[in-house]
Amino acid sequence: MAPVITLTTDFGHAGPFVGVMKAVIAEHAPGADVHDLSHDIAPWQPGEAGFWLARCYRYFPAGSVHVVVVDPGVGTARAVLACAWDGHLFLAPDNGILPMIAGPQAALHTLGADWLARQNWPAPSQTFHGRDIFAPLAAAMLTGRVRPPDIGPRAASPVPAAIAAPVVTADAVTGRVAAIDRWGNLITNIEPALLARWQRPLVRIAHHELPIVPTYGAVAPGTLLALVNSFGVLEIAVREGNAAQLLGLGHGAEVITIDA
Amino acid sequence: MAPVITLTTDFGHAGPFVGVMKAVIAEHAPGADVHDLSHDIAPWQPGEAGFWLARCYRYFPAGSVHVVVVDPGVGTARAVLACAWDGHLFLAPDNGILPMIAGPQAALHTLGADWLARQNWPAPSQTFHGRDIFAPLAAAMLTGRVRPPDIGPRAASPVPAAIAAPVVTADAVTGRVAAIDRWGNLITNIEPALLARWQRPLVRIAHHELPIVPTYGAVAPGTLLALVNSFGVLEIAVREGNAAQLLGLGHGAEVITIDA
Amino acid sequence: MAPVITLTTDFGHAGPFVGVMKAVIAEHAPGADVHDLSHDIAPWQPGEAGFWLARCYRYFPAGSVHVVVVDPGVGTARAVLACAWDGHLFLAPDNGILPMIAGPQAALHTLGADWLARQNWPAPSQTFHGRDIFAPLAAAMLTGRVRPPDIGPRAASPVPAAIAAPVVTADAVTGRVAAIDRWGNLITNIEPALLARWQRPLVRIAHHELPIVPTYGAVAPGTLLALVNSFGVLEIAVREGNAAQLLGLGHGAEVITIDA
Repeated sequence: MAPVITLTTDFGHAGPFVGVMKAVIAEHAPGADVHDLSHDIAPWQPGEAGFWLARCYRYFPAGSVHVVVVDPGVGTARAVLACAWDGHLFLAPDNGILPMIAGPQAALHTLGADWLARQNWPAPSQTFHGRDIFAPLAAAMLTGRVRPPDIGPRAASPVPAAIAAPVVTADAVTGRVAAIDRWGNLITNIEPALLARWQRPLVRIAHHELPIVPTYGAVAPGTLLALVNSFGVLEIAVREGNAAQLLGLGHGAEVITIDA
Repeated sequence: MAPVITLTTDFGHAGPFVGVMKAVIAEHAPGADVHDLSHDIAPWQPGEAGFWLARCYRYFPAGSVHVVVVDPGVGTARAVLACAWDGHLFLAPDNGILPMIAGPQAALHTLGADWLARQNWPAPSQTFHGRDIFAPLAAAMLTGRVRPPDIGPRAASPVPAAIAAPVVTADAVTGRVAAIDRWGNLITNIEPALLARWQRPLVRIAHHELPIVPTYGAVAPGTLLALVNSFGVLEIAVREGNAAQLLGLGHGAEVITIDA
Repeated sequence: MAPVITLTTDFGHAGPFVGVMKAVIAEHAPGADVHDLSHDIAPWQPGEAGFWLARCYRYFPAGSVHVVVVDPGVGTARAVLACAWDGHLFLAPDNGILPMIAGPQAALHTLGADWLARQNWPAPSQTFHGRDIFAPLAAAMLTGRVRPPDIGPRAASPVPAAIAAPVVTADAVTGRVAAIDRWGNLITNIEPALLARWQRPLVRIAHHELPIVPTYGAVAPGTLLALVNSFGVLEIAVREGNAAQLLGLGHGAEVITIDA
């Protein structure tokens, strides 16, 4: 399979933002295959974007370029970062996305103003770097014309992971709600390996204590449950219901796991 | 035209579910053309998915593979069904979708655990069969490597149609709201042929009695109306308004048609 | 780059409307590249569609066919218009969309019933001209088989622009909110050239008076601001917030700019 470009943004679908980004990619890399990972990342939640991309990039061919544009700091001095990791290429604003995907030994390169000025691209706007910088840069990286080290020096102190790894203590593992899906499932950053030391782990969330069941259908409709989902993390759900609404919880909510 | 794969799901767009399904399809059937029918089927409403696909599959080339993943029973003992019908191939959970599309004489084949185990696919998760089973199976069916009878025996007693056909009596035809669109139009499963015996059919819904008009513009803005829509079924709408909100009705609401 | 077809509609994603339009395009122009500009235009707001397409069509290759289906008058006597402008082709209902894109000297041609009857297309429904007329016509225009003058005479008096140009007086420029994006930004039709005569323009909206700042990050989170956005028009936003909700304003809201 030929490498592709994937897009992960908080642009939503009201407005031409995704369509115009793809038009610019097509102009710079005719025939490139562009895949949408999601454009409904919660607004200004780089952590949700980093969480999903970390768990999804391996489904795409090696050499693919993965672009994240969740970018509340667009137009300010925040940097644009690129890195190679695990045979893939990544491109995102410097707001804690790439450290959720690449290991600490990955080289995150900062796009340099001088390098940008040497490209034959229109001067970037202050508010839509997805179109003006990320799209042509992803196209150039897909074709191999540009590698991360070409665009600038390694970032001295990139913004750390937008969602920190769970905190592990003697008797608890404390993580966070990293993503919420269409059904209102609360998807955490807790991987079950962290709980392997316990016979019967329990998940504490908003005054509930839940055992871990195999799938949604293991409980009655309308019932709260916890499971290990298809991306290998703990998820809190309501069978045929909406856990986010039921519990009144959102991104960043604390999830504690303990031994029963 | 070459056959395609169509996708109809309730995944929505918040999260990478559709994107990852497409990545797996591309891995198993490089170059396959994948069309989105809708990913905003109402959550856990297999009837809405079956309703739409029954009315849409003919717009795609013969030989196309139509995949529905509206699957509240994922991970339980519910079966996965495949069938050939009218020159097309269909793939869905056993929850009343395929009987809304294929005639009663169609052979619905049940995916066998043994057949699945012989494929070289990763072990399926308990919660995302769209990615782990439907995507590679659709790819194999598109290329012709796999036909419905290959995957397992005929289903002995598949779940019947998720939305039953309208009930026809001497003086009424009673159907249901099968789908709701973006504008809030209430789309029923009543075809006008059922009303052909009447000079002046009336549509009864939530204490209203509506004649059938040709199009939205036949009434004043804000007015409730009934028409035969472009998919050949009765629809209740408000001109430039939202009938679902105005009437407080949703999927499954009863719609009665009578003679004036 | 080969020309493409772009689609701009208010169909949303709940229902198969976009998917079926694309299936018909693929049938009539196999291999055509179809790009989504947006399908979440506010329902029945042709002005929002015209606004966005006017600012986006240049990102696509010359010769592209841009189709807008925001069409509350579908099935009534409203005309279908086609025109060539600036090396691109456009197709839309006669409800004020094309005059927002093409200059007054552009020839807007009206689709003739006689021409339509001569095509080998299924008889159009009363409610889905996107599928029955716009899709096959766009395909025919993309391949060059049909040019706007072929389909019928010039429109004698097309509906004027759905959103009028700003009103410029000695001491104010008064425009409108033309579009709202996913983040709740209020995007106006006021271009900064209209304000060039003033040293320090102020934007008046809902009892607020805002200076123009370079980007969102120029103010504190939660703060209202005005900027010139990446499509070259004034936009009212809240940094990491929702201006439409905060101000309670929607499409068509008045925006006044004055000198400080």
